[in-house]
Amino acid sequence: MGRTILTGIKPTGQIHLGNYIGAIKPALDLAVLPGYKSAYFVADYHGLTQIHNAEEFRQLSYGIAATWLALGLDPEKVVFYRQSDVPDIFELNWILSCFSSKGLMNRAHAYKASVERNKNSEKDQDFGVNMGLYNYPILMAADILMFKTEVVPVGKDQVQHVEIARDIAEVFNHTYGETFLLPEYKIQEDTAVLPGLDGRKMSKSYNNTIPLFEEPKKLLKLINKIKTDSLPPEAPKDPEHSPIFMLYKEFASEIEVEQMKEQYLTGISWGDAKKELFNVMNRFLEEPREKYNELMSSPEKIDEILREGAEKARSITTPFLKEIKSKVWIYV
Amino acid sequence: MGRTILTGIKPTGQIHLGNYIGAIKPALDLAVLPGYKSAYFVADYHGLTQIHNAEEFRQLSYGIAATWLALGLDPEKVVFYRQSDVPDIFELNWILSCFSSKGLMNRAHAYKASVERNKNSEKDQDFGVNMGLYNYPILMAADILMFKTEVVPVGKDQVQHVEIARDIAEVFNHTYGETFLLPEYKIQEDTAVLPGLDGRKMSKSYNNTIPLFEEPKKLLKLINKIKTDSLPPEAPKDPEHSPIFMLYKEFASEIEVEQMKEQYLTGISWGDAKKELFNVMNRFLEEPREKYNELMSSPEKIDEILREGAEKARSITTPFLKEIKSKVWIYV
Repeated sequence: MGRTILTGIKPTGQIHLGNYIGAIKPALDLAVLPGYKSAYFVADYHGLTQIHNAEEFRQLSYGIAATWLALGLDPEKVVFYRQSDVPDIFELNWILSCFSSKGLMNRAHAYKASVERNKNSEKDQDFGVNMGLYNYPILMAADILMFKTEVVPVGKDQVQHVEIARDIAEVFNHTYGETFLLPEYKIQEDTAVLPGLDGRKMSKSYNNTIPLFEEPKKLLKLINKIKTDSLPPEAPKDPEHSPIFMLYKEFASEIEVEQMKEQYLTGISWGDAKKELFNVMNRFLEEPREKYNELMSSPEKIDEILREGAEKARSITTPFLKEIKSKVWIYV
Repeated sequence: MGRTILTGIKPTGQIHLGNYIGAIKPALDLAVLPGYKSAYFVADYHGLTQIHNAEEFRQLSYGIAATWLALGLDPEKVVFYRQSDVPDIFELNWILSCFSSKGLMNRAHAYKASVERNKNSEKDQDFGVNMGLYNYPILMAADILMFKTEVVPVGKDQVQHVEIARDIAEVFNHTYGETFLLPEYKIQEDTAVLPGLDGRKMSKSYNNTIPLFEEPKKLLKLINKIKTDSLPPEAPKDPEHSPIFMLYKEFASEIEVEQMKEQYLTGISWGDAKKELFNVMNRFLEEPREKYNELMSSPEKIDEILREGAEKARSITTPFLKEIKSKVWIYV
């Protein structure tokens, strides 16, 4: 396998437009990058650190897989698998833990933020932290290193995960000789930060999201909820600071964007702007939504695709794990 | 499989007489307990938390397996496996970590002792702690719970491990319904604490051990090093506080023990007492030592036995892991 780019999404929430624009769309663009092999995975065992309701977890897990497929991921051209279908990752996870200093975990952003929150509310610093959350960076290192990943596309807040994976890999390589490829991160700089219903960044934690595959009626209803100012229809409006315009830009053609800009400057009612936004959004989402619903109603199709993907994945991981085990001397 | 008793030994040091008397001998007695099924394993992945030298690790791992077999463990009658041959354990390890509070790990004795040592030497409290060591109790819970273990024979210092396994199992059972059997510990109360060369408890950390399968010449040399007082040969001696007598008791027949007691009370030179000790010890060790050396010189025989054992083990773990995964909803 050539130079590998790896992207995983954990099933901990319903996919929304912000996820699509910020993570899924740029990741799908990578699938066709010449000279690279792309791997995509449903990070279900990462999700288990948070979701302890089986039925919800089931829906979310299938949801991630169906989303990738509905948006055009071609499982023939990439390695597309469920993390849990590759047990080698969990054995490597243990091996790596033996080469990860606890201090490294203490410095992980997510854990530090949790300690901070607990301190602020005068709780024990580890209140509510389970060991899955604390160990998260090691499992992520296993995900990355297991596939000899060269590039991990990340948001700015995830740079540290790749750095931790490098650190662990270096300790191991230093002990047993060159074994792991040191991964690089690629920050998705040019990624638009999509505004949510309230104008702030669209994010599950702000409760201001538009689910990616919402039914048209509900989609329109949500779009109508987008916060606007009280300017009258005929007043010129500033496109650059309008959440409606920012969303519109992502789904409209260049010409449409130019025309909408014109309308903003000459005067358009917020109601009309929202209607236009709905039209371009729905036009784009119609087909993937149908495919998504189709897949979600016959999950056995998803299973089949992922089963094939897991075979591809294991054909990479199993020989590599053997190599790793023989270096530390674990019988293979 | 009936009620299961589980015993593991990690390959982190050469097996010595103290290990034999304190852990291996009582564990072997359990193998023939009616109504129970016994499982024994080489805890190689636990050893990886400490041993990062491949050749040393190889020797130690084979050493543990050869020791069990040399001392009469019958692989036909028990489940005898290498931990690393059962990948299901490492997947379960991750699952359990998602249900283990970090606070529970902070309270683990071994970690607390390490924090204490670091504080005393004014180091960062996590200095030198790797995540394998910190996660150790979770992997041990996976070892135990994976086999629906009912009884874990432990030394007093290991009671907490079984308690942690129970805690984690209870959290999981509470979330998803009865899944794991809650294990009980059985403290090996009547186990003699074997004295080492300096009279203190025989222990690797005191550097006062007698390796179990030492060659006769070296064994005699070590026995001659056992600390004694300067009483002359003809002086009556106190058997109860003599390390030589305490060791003698473990290997001699009842009649021999009575006779030796007599000799102590009427007067025996330390040199003669040591010679007698060597004789009974070597008489017992001769045959297992030969078998041990034979196995260590053809490790492929050990591999074959463990391979068969691993199959038996996986015939238990694989269906059970499936059941566990389907409860949390991880696709199986």
